[in-house]
Amino acid sequence: MKDLTDIPALMAEMGRRARAAAAELAFAPSEARRRALEAAADAVWARRAEIVAANAQDLDYGREKGLSDAMMDRLMLDEARIQGIVDGLRAVAAQDDPVGATLAEWEQPNGLTIRRVRTPLGVIGVIYESRPNVTADAGALCLKAGNAVILRGGSESFHSSGLIHDCLVEGLRVAGLPEDAIQRVPTRDRAAVRELLTMTDSVDVIVPRGGKGLVGLVQQEARVPVFAHLEGIVHVYVDAAADPVKALRVVLNAKTRRTGICGAAECLLIHRDALDTVGQGLVRALLEAGVEVRGDETLQAIEGVQAATEEDWGREYLDSIIAARVVEDIDAAIAHIRRYGSGHTDCILTEDDAAAARFFERLDSAILMRNASTQFADGGEFGMGAEIGIATGKLHARGPVGAEQLTSFKYLVTGDGAVRG
Amino acid sequence: MKDLTDIPALMAEMGRRARAAAAELAFAPSEARRRALEAAADAVWARRAEIVAANAQDLDYGREKGLSDAMMDRLMLDEARIQGIVDGLRAVAAQDDPVGATLAEWEQPNGLTIRRVRTPLGVIGVIYESRPNVTADAGALCLKAGNAVILRGGSESFHSSGLIHDCLVEGLRVAGLPEDAIQRVPTRDRAAVRELLTMTDSVDVIVPRGGKGLVGLVQQEARVPVFAHLEGIVHVYVDAAADPVKALRVVLNAKTRRTGICGAAECLLIHRDALDTVGQGLVRALLEAGVEVRGDETLQAIEGVQAATEEDWGREYLDSIIAARVVEDIDAAIAHIRRYGSGHTDCILTEDDAAAARFFERLDSAILMRNASTQFADGGEFGMGAEIGIATGKLHARGPVGAEQLTSFKYLVTGDGAVRG
Repeated sequence: MKDLTDIPALMAEMGRRARAAAAELAFAPSEARRRALEAAADAVWARRAEIVAANAQDLDYGREKGLSDAMMDRLMLDEARIQGIVDGLRAVAAQDDPVGATLAEWEQPNGLTIRRVRTPLGVIGVIYESRPNVTADAGALCLKAGNAVILRGGSESFHSSGLIHDCLVEGLRVAGLPEDAIQRVPTRDRAAVRELLTMTDSVDVIVPRGGKGLVGLVQQEARVPVFAHLEGIVHVYVDAAADPVKALRVVLNAKTRRTGICGAAECLLIHRDALDTVGQGLVRALLEAGVEVRGDETLQAIEGVQAATEEDWGREYLDSIIAARVVEDIDAAIAHIRRYGSGHTDCILTEDDAAAARFFERLDSAILMRNASTQFADGGEFGMGAEIGIATGKLHARGPVGAEQLTSFKYLVTGDGAVRG
Repeated sequence: MKDLTDIPALMAEMGRRARAAAAELAFAPSEARRRALEAAADAVWARRAEIVAANAQDLDYGREKGLSDAMMDRLMLDEARIQGIVDGLRAVAAQDDPVGATLAEWEQPNGLTIRRVRTPLGVIGVIYESRPNVTADAGALCLKAGNAVILRGGSESFHSSGLIHDCLVEGLRVAGLPEDAIQRVPTRDRAAVRELLTMTDSVDVIVPRGGKGLVGLVQQEARVPVFAHLEGIVHVYVDAAADPVKALRVVLNAKTRRTGICGAAECLLIHRDALDTVGQGLVRALLEAGVEVRGDETLQAIEGVQAATEEDWGREYLDSIIAARVVEDIDAAIAHIRRYGSGHTDCILTEDDAAAARFFERLDSAILMRNASTQFADGGEFGMGAEIGIATGKLHARGPVGAEQLTSFKYLVTGDGAVRG
């Protein structure tokens, strides 16, 4: 049994093992990685009763800690949700292998043939919060892309994550892959997170999945590169040339389909000229749907609209609340989004191609949409299969991060004794 | 005149200006960026006498500081070298525009059309050492890719870099682009470097170009993401199946063509079975060419070979010195490179396809070569045009970093009122 109190030594050892596993994984056959994921899915399903029992322990712990209903719901696993985990593992197993593909190949006049091929990134650290299914999703995606991974889940899901992790390791064993390819930090001690963030020798990238607290800690303490994953402060701008029917459909879906996901709309911007034709009806429909609307002075004239304060701009509610404001023109909408947005997903509702082009050109969010619900901001909906999150940074991965984004590349250069003149 | 003593305020102001310029550059036409670079080239040539005079001041400063001959040579500008700068600017101007290209486009069954388009990265900080021409190269590449840049050159090239920077700004003015698109830190104070490394709000990525001291400082203090640019600890492995003629050509070129570049060979690994057929002749040829060979015990039997110590493995000489060792087999060569290499460029000399495949598969350097001189590790030789350096990290940019690697991307999603079920 490892000493779980000496966190630096524990984490350093995990790092060394991960690095060694990554070196082996880098040339493990595609088929072995696929089999490991299939076997892990079998194991999760076979052990579902155990997982539900372990989850009951986690739920007790969560109740003691006084978690909110929403948090308790995220933590809970039942047979249907375990079926979801199994389906997810099989879906990742069935995806095309991103590793080894030739991305480009060309010949140079100097006699060289140059090939750029996709490789695993190496070792990935994933830090996440309450949902135990992330253990399976993140472990599977990292392995699919040939990476070793160190998982550090939230303390709430400690027992259920532990069992799911056991199943992943069983899959590795069945497939003859190194068991250290998917490791899980075996302690709730938060010092392990701090340690993981600074292991520049053994970890290539950190993927944080969680709320403001985690993101802040990561931004402050990480020495290892991070796939930035900020909040989804998602704006929907209703242009002067918005189609009223589409606008109503899209805004209601963007806000109300699921309020707790990062692609849910958080702020509505309405062009002054669309206020009477589309805007007022939209706001009333949101109110009727049970959404709390926090509007600027103009919108407060509509019955039921609360007064927005400065704090409502740039805020991620993840709840049945939306901020709303009237803007003078598209440039005012763009300026608002630049100032308050988080570069995640922003949407324009318009039939005017020039307006859409301006919006697409002058904003630099990871995802820009036209006449489509922002709830589509999701790797599955983009056709990428499962995702480990939506990256809001501009380096390497951006938007939905699937297996392909968890890879790097190298150049293979062949000559026939070529020398440089 | 700005207050050059309040470094944090000075740098924060530069960051704000860079961010504003980047927002404008993001949709500046390709043609304007091209014209700016052409006009900058004209300005450099027109002001060449001034630049040479400013460079004389820098050379005086360098002599006072007691720079080595090699450093003084790197610092020196004459008309021929200024012609090189001008040619470089025009070559970057003539390159295809990397910005705006559609990287992929597809339709989803949910009714969305998704386009992935290339965008500028934003604001780039370039920190470099003595060579004044980097001011032009780095400024030009960043602008080509639609980025704003903050340049921080070495204190030795202060005056010549300042004048070259003036010419770049003149180019921006001629083309009607924001002058803050290419800024230069106007002080030698090293505190400015520390500041630049932590400006996470206004700088998207740091590109360090320099020796160990700079790289160490960057690794220790950077909060902004960095395109890692480690040393080139370049290995050449002579396999049992190496062709003697190609091996001789390639090794001599890899070591001696230019010893001071990052693609120069620093360590020779010789398969035991190739020792008599190829290895001994190779070592003698290196000695004859004036190279100091620091060999292991076996190689010390050859007259003129010095004894290598443990410090010689994994060392970047950038000089007419090479470490050399006999290895039992290809796996021992791979193990040596994994342990001592820097992930820059490594080469195998072999006629055996299986050996080459093993070397390519089991090593993860940015550039792996077969039967070709490592001195080809260069953006120009790869057909990428100018380069800002060779990245040894695995995130985002890897290998030669040209204009294309200085970009990011975003997703543009179009629906017709599509909502998620």
